[in-house]
Amino acid sequence: MTQIRNATDADKPAVWQIIKAVIASGDTYTFAPDTPEAEMISFWFSPEKHVYVAEDGGIILGTYWLKANQPGLGDHVGNGGYMVSPDATGRGIGKLMAEHSIEEARRIGYHSIQFNFVVKSNTAAVNLWKSVGFTVIGEIPDAIRHSRNGLTNAYIMYRKL
Amino acid sequence: MTQIRNATDADKPAVWQIIKAVIASGDTYTFAPDTPEAEMISFWFSPEKHVYVAEDGGIILGTYWLKANQPGLGDHVGNGGYMVSPDATGRGIGKLMAEHSIEEARRIGYHSIQFNFVVKSNTAAVNLWKSVGFTVIGEIPDAIRHSRNGLTNAYIMYRKL
Repeated sequence: MTQIRNATDADKPAVWQIIKAVIASGDTYTFAPDTPEAEMISFWFSPEKHVYVAEDGGIILGTYWLKANQPGLGDHVGNGGYMVSPDATGRGIGKLMAEHSIEEARRIGYHSIQFNFVVKSNTAAVNLWKSVGFTVIGEIPDAIRHSRNGLTNAYIMYRKL
Repeated sequence: MTQIRNATDADKPAVWQIIKAVIASGDTYTFAPDTPEAEMISFWFSPEKHVYVAEDGGIILGTYWLKANQPGLGDHVGNGGYMVSPDATGRGIGKLMAEHSIEEARRIGYHSIQFNFVVKSNTAAVNLWKSVGFTVIGEIPDAIRHSRNGLTNAYIMYRKL
């Protein structure tokens, strides 16, 4: 059974394997596929983030983080980043993390969650977020140089908590 | 006559005076009004930014920066932050910096500019950006705890270059 818990330093190598595999495709995140491990781990575990992993039988299948999307007078709006191991897609890990993160965001005290960048052609992600109550509040033209499709739009998505 | 040039370390004290005055109002930026100088200067002059000042007769009247809004596969979209000294409003400094920044963004190589957070009630800014070709591509509900009006929406604005 998959459980979600706070990430620790010991999870970093496993988290990096997921990040590396996810950014390699160049179709869901803007990070260059050759971004070095140190840079990505420093980003994923930066001090202001709450970082989680989805674990099943000692194997890390996914990871996500939450942080405030703006400082000071905007820090009641949360933001998050999510990645599922390509080896574990179709097992509901994304949905599990999505639902977990909504509860965690409430616990932290955010009033809402905003995603700044959901690639429009990533229909699995767009549909997942819609299924847990997010709506599209904006669309950025030509936001990512998608590895296969070229310039592709991205959605801004939002949900009240 | 007001000229715009690259900012230097020597401009930091004057830039801080502008930032301090602008964030004090709590109605246009989310930075907490009591954010310390070191934190704001570190943000405004962070290494990835191109920073400029508008100067007239040795007096700094405004400042702005440009940077990529996303890393890697999204770094063709620029982003910017702009502040005019409250002592110098109504003199066209904002417009001058807006037009200058569009040229600079082209020169840097961005294909477009995206602003992630223009407070909806800041009609001077919204109208300025519309006047130089930006459109609203999204609206974030309750995005800022506005100092006088409480929870207030923010626009996401965008312009192709």
